[in-house]
Amino acid sequence: MSTQPQHLVVVGGGFAGLWATRALADAPLRITLIDRHNHHLFQPLLYQVATAGLSAPDIAAPLRHILRDQRNVEVRLGEVVDIAAPQRSVALADGSTLHYDYLLLATGATHAYFGNDQWAAHAPGLKTLNDALHLRRKLLMAFERAETETDPQARAAWLSFAIVGGGPTGVELAGTLAEIARHTLKNEFRNIDPRMARVRLIEAGPRVLPSFPEDLTDKAQRQLERLGVEVFTGTPVTHIDAEGYRLGDTFVPARTVFWAAGVAASPLARTLGVPLDRAGRVQVAPDLSVPGHPEIFVGGDLAALQQDGRPVPGVAPAAKQMGRYIAKALRARLAGQPAPAFRYQDYGNLATIGRMAAIVHVGRFKLSGLLAWWFWLAAHVYFLIGFRNRFVVLVNWAMAYWSYQRAARIIFGRAHDDPPPQA
Amino acid sequence: MSTQPQHLVVVGGGFAGLWATRALADAPLRITLIDRHNHHLFQPLLYQVATAGLSAPDIAAPLRHILRDQRNVEVRLGEVVDIAAPQRSVALADGSTLHYDYLLLATGATHAYFGNDQWAAHAPGLKTLNDALHLRRKLLMAFERAETETDPQARAAWLSFAIVGGGPTGVELAGTLAEIARHTLKNEFRNIDPRMARVRLIEAGPRVLPSFPEDLTDKAQRQLERLGVEVFTGTPVTHIDAEGYRLGDTFVPARTVFWAAGVAASPLARTLGVPLDRAGRVQVAPDLSVPGHPEIFVGGDLAALQQDGRPVPGVAPAAKQMGRYIAKALRARLAGQPAPAFRYQDYGNLATIGRMAAIVHVGRFKLSGLLAWWFWLAAHVYFLIGFRNRFVVLVNWAMAYWSYQRAARIIFGRAHDDPPPQA
Repeated sequence: MSTQPQHLVVVGGGFAGLWATRALADAPLRITLIDRHNHHLFQPLLYQVATAGLSAPDIAAPLRHILRDQRNVEVRLGEVVDIAAPQRSVALADGSTLHYDYLLLATGATHAYFGNDQWAAHAPGLKTLNDALHLRRKLLMAFERAETETDPQARAAWLSFAIVGGGPTGVELAGTLAEIARHTLKNEFRNIDPRMARVRLIEAGPRVLPSFPEDLTDKAQRQLERLGVEVFTGTPVTHIDAEGYRLGDTFVPARTVFWAAGVAASPLARTLGVPLDRAGRVQVAPDLSVPGHPEIFVGGDLAALQQDGRPVPGVAPAAKQMGRYIAKALRARLAGQPAPAFRYQDYGNLATIGRMAAIVHVGRFKLSGLLAWWFWLAAHVYFLIGFRNRFVVLVNWAMAYWSYQRAARIIFGRAHDDPPPQA
Repeated sequence: MSTQPQHLVVVGGGFAGLWATRALADAPLRITLIDRHNHHLFQPLLYQVATAGLSAPDIAAPLRHILRDQRNVEVRLGEVVDIAAPQRSVALADGSTLHYDYLLLATGATHAYFGNDQWAAHAPGLKTLNDALHLRRKLLMAFERAETETDPQARAAWLSFAIVGGGPTGVELAGTLAEIARHTLKNEFRNIDPRMARVRLIEAGPRVLPSFPEDLTDKAQRQLERLGVEVFTGTPVTHIDAEGYRLGDTFVPARTVFWAAGVAASPLARTLGVPLDRAGRVQVAPDLSVPGHPEIFVGGDLAALQQDGRPVPGVAPAAKQMGRYIAKALRARLAGQPAPAFRYQDYGNLATIGRMAAIVHVGRFKLSGLLAWWFWLAAHVYFLIGFRNRFVVLVNWAMAYWSYQRAARIIFGRAHDDPPPQA
């Protein structure tokens, strides 16, 4: 008599969910991977889609295709809206219910506006491909509006850009936006000079890229300034509306503000009924399971874990390591063996700043400028899933490098009105 | 005393408008090119974006970028909503007005539902990048819905596809859809076999691709059938709704119907106040000007012209020739010289059918099958504007050819509901 394999439901096809699923290829489990999107997204390059350097499909691959040969996996496009932990079941938005023996929650993070949700409409953030296309449209449209605007003050507001938040995404967006204004759009307008655009990067804390050593972030800030970005640190944004934002006590007119300041855990965690940290993440046990629910694991940005007195960071390498660890812990569990605690291996920290500028921190090794940028480029191209994407991305970058041009400068959607912001 | 150059307003940055503008680079004219989109679109490959083979930016290039070095041109993103021919001015949707000395109308065509506008919501057509992304989402979502549908009849309806219209676009869509169902998605689903999908191509007339000689269209139909397409000719669709369509007297359940059957001229022509043909096109004089308005030219799909008793076809080569001719006629006009009448040079006719299948008709030269497909491929890659796009498109195709995979199989937008059809 053969036993029916137990059922693992994985919610979220990001780095944690996908890496766990792939590491369970030959495990005696039936796996259902549920995601709201049909694709795995290489989030570290999302800012390149937002700034028109890459096409959306360049950094995404269909989950079904990645997992087509793993016969113990069923991929399901859908949204989990509720978890009934006592019943061991999840409810989907389409009304169906799935029972599980084991559950892996890896739904990641979303933007947080720190209680100022009314800012969302004026300062969109960057988490999904739709977000990226929205940002792209908004920034390209700003130059178009400036070109036809005849009032000098109104025109200046269309050429005033701000990025709120000096973490990696904010720095990438600011650096690339400055490059677009200074180089890409040069000579293309007749009534404005795109180089007149002001790009401001605003960080409430004392410095940009705070996860790096101070000497490297100083270099990063100087590289940003060389690209044409005005960096404001230690200054909080206290108000945002359609006309601009308030920086400390000063109102700055700006028609384009992007939000890269805060993340909060995906709201699904709240339906678990277990303790969450202030950002809404699940405080997991050392084996990444939920205290009181050993059959539920949490991985990626949704998991809150301290290691050596410091939080494990919400970055792609940590999510992949968690995914692989959970697969191993689950195998041990199925074999009736104990699993050692999860340990995050920090292999280093990279941030790109703009054209040929980046910083790298690996152990005692520090690098900045052009060499760091090549290092960053190689690492990111290498980690992109799938040969085809890797190759096309390389081609696009090589072209952009030589020509200053950006391959995806195409505005979708209506020409005149900004689409309503996405919920 | 220098004379102020006269002002040419070009409405539409398609093949006719863009080719005319470029051919007037050193003419003593001030040119304003107005388009609703920021890009020139290589429409012959739009079906590849709809069927997830290419990314949207692969077949589009920003008009500003193409024309950046032509200093007598100003590109303006906007929609012309009215033409006041007596006042020689056009009105834009943003409320502004532009005066012209010469006007070139080249706003092309849109879908026509032959008085059945209620079908538009259930059978979207393919004219813009937004249309293409809508079709892509709809066809990929149909397989996703079939995968989770448990009722066999409902599932069959999700796997039932129809393309209405046997012209080039309908044939391309049908052939590619069959390839996706038979090859691309193979092994990726667990509850359905995508090869069970039915792809029907429906043509009301007696044969598909009627602009080709009969022996070639016979071959095209056989190639389609070999790819897995069921071809119905001589059968009109008499009804379409969300559940399916009526073919003659039979109702066929189908959740995915695409419309490739009819085109009508852009509605802007109606505001001219001159005689239009039944499809709404402007009946132009032999020099492509509007009778009674020598200062207004019409080019591309918007122009209705008979030559040797046959209409000049609405294809890209004709639009380019018209654009170049209008530039020449305008130069002659400015120099006070007469312009010979426009003559369309028919260099041949190509249609692609699907993987390694096409037909070619050039003079007395006829070709079908694999060789025709290579011919078609070379011609289309050659004509794509800009080196970068050409190269990336080639890479994508080479990959698709060897792997049967499609690079852009990414669903944007909400996961569960089809977005509302676009107006």
